Amino acid sequence: MTTYRLHNYWRSSASYRVRIALAHKELAYEYVVVNIVKDGGEQNRDEYRAKNPMTQVPTLEVLDGARSIYLAQSMAILEYLEETVPSRPLLPKDPVHRARARQFAEGVNAGIQPFQNVPVLAELSAMGKEGPAWAKKWNERGLDALERMATDWQDGRFVIGDAPTFADVFLVPQLGAARRFGVDVEPRYPRLVAIEKACAALPAFQAAVPEKQPDAPKS
Amino acid sequence: MTTYRLHNYWRSSASYRVRIALAHKELAYEYVVVNIVKDGGEQNRDEYRAKNPMTQVPTLEVLDGARSIYLAQSMAILEYLEETVPSRPLLPKDPVHRARARQFAEGVNAGIQPFQNVPVLAELSAMGKEGPAWAKKWNERGLDALERMATDWQDGRFVIGDAPTFADVFLVPQLGAARRFGVDVEPRYPRLVAIEKACAALPAFQAAVPEKQPDAPKS
Repeated sequence: MTTYRLHNYWRSSASYRVRIALAHKELAYEYVVVNIVKDGGEQNRDEYRAKNPMTQVPTLEVLDGARSIYLAQSMAILEYLEETVPSRPLLPKDPVHRARARQFAEGVNAGIQPFQNVPVLAELSAMGKEGPAWAKKWNERGLDALERMATDWQDGRFVIGDAPTFADVFLVPQLGAARRFGVDVEPRYPRLVAIEKACAALPAFQAAVPEKQPDAPKS
Repeated sequence: MTTYRLHNYWRSSASYRVRIALAHKELAYEYVVVNIVKDGGEQNRDEYRAKNPMTQVPTLEVLDGARSIYLAQSMAILEYLEETVPSRPLLPKDPVHRARARQFAEGVNAGIQPFQNVPVLAELSAMGKEGPAWAKKWNERGLDALERMATDWQDGRFVIGDAPTFADVFLVPQLGAARRFGVDVEPRYPRLVAIEKACAALPAFQAAVPEKQPDAPKS
């Protein structure tokens, strides 16, 4: 029997993506906290680096009997879940629609999120530059392109048609991050905000919200 | 009958990845030059933006009869080719090996390449900072992790076993870029350099080399 452990952090947007996918596929998992901001970041400890040499969250631990396999990179993890648990798919059937879902998701994964990573913001700060202003700029640049794609492709409630895909799974956490960096999401991205609302009605997206996770600060 | 046009630039590492994949799958394509450095970059023109709102190269145009479809993001393009032209695969069969190939490729795609993009280097320059030193730093940080993964997983001539995968397709262009930014690739990454050598023996990797492309400067 396969079980899962997700090594992650409540506010990490890459962790949030994998939580959505696991919940969407109705896969239970043990939540293992990796605090990426405390004491220089638990992800930089040797013990974690052995699981994930990229020293990022999340890492999905797949336990099959006594054997553990560690998988990193949210996109690779989503593809793995899609292949090994094909029920409740997060990719459409048509190859062009699949390509668009991935293209949109990569617009977040490679096009925005890298610029707001903890080590990047730390590096900018060490250079005497303002990390949040930098992050805001790349969020806007990327989201402008995503708004255009989602408008061009509009054919339902979600990025691609009437079912959530990788595109939505990557979009929702990114919009949360964009707001934190001061992007004026509401007036600027009407189509993306409408998609976010459609996602917010789904139990999987609700369960994965950062503020509901065990390591989120109690308000 | 399906035909392909690749809108790309000789030195772009994301273009290089797609050229390798097309050559590996023995798919002929028309080479359309998008000069990303001349006159502010042809990728920023409205005509190109309509094909690819992210204004990056490459864009794969898939022509089926009179209809053209434009696909962006090298990872999404590789997955599309893998699904629509399954012969000569670039992903292993085993789900964990597939996940590792993608994880490694994302280590380049989301972990290194975004930091050396043309607009990022331009932005750093506008901030009075040295783009190449920044690019070198993120190349080293990322390649250190990839060297470790490729060493941990070693089980053949390539990143995963004895056949090239997405991991190798993303690695080879990145090593070229790393050298351009002054990374001391040869002594520092023995395992990655050995894999690069194995790739260099394959016709697909040979055909895709930047210096052999029609828009490369004549030496």
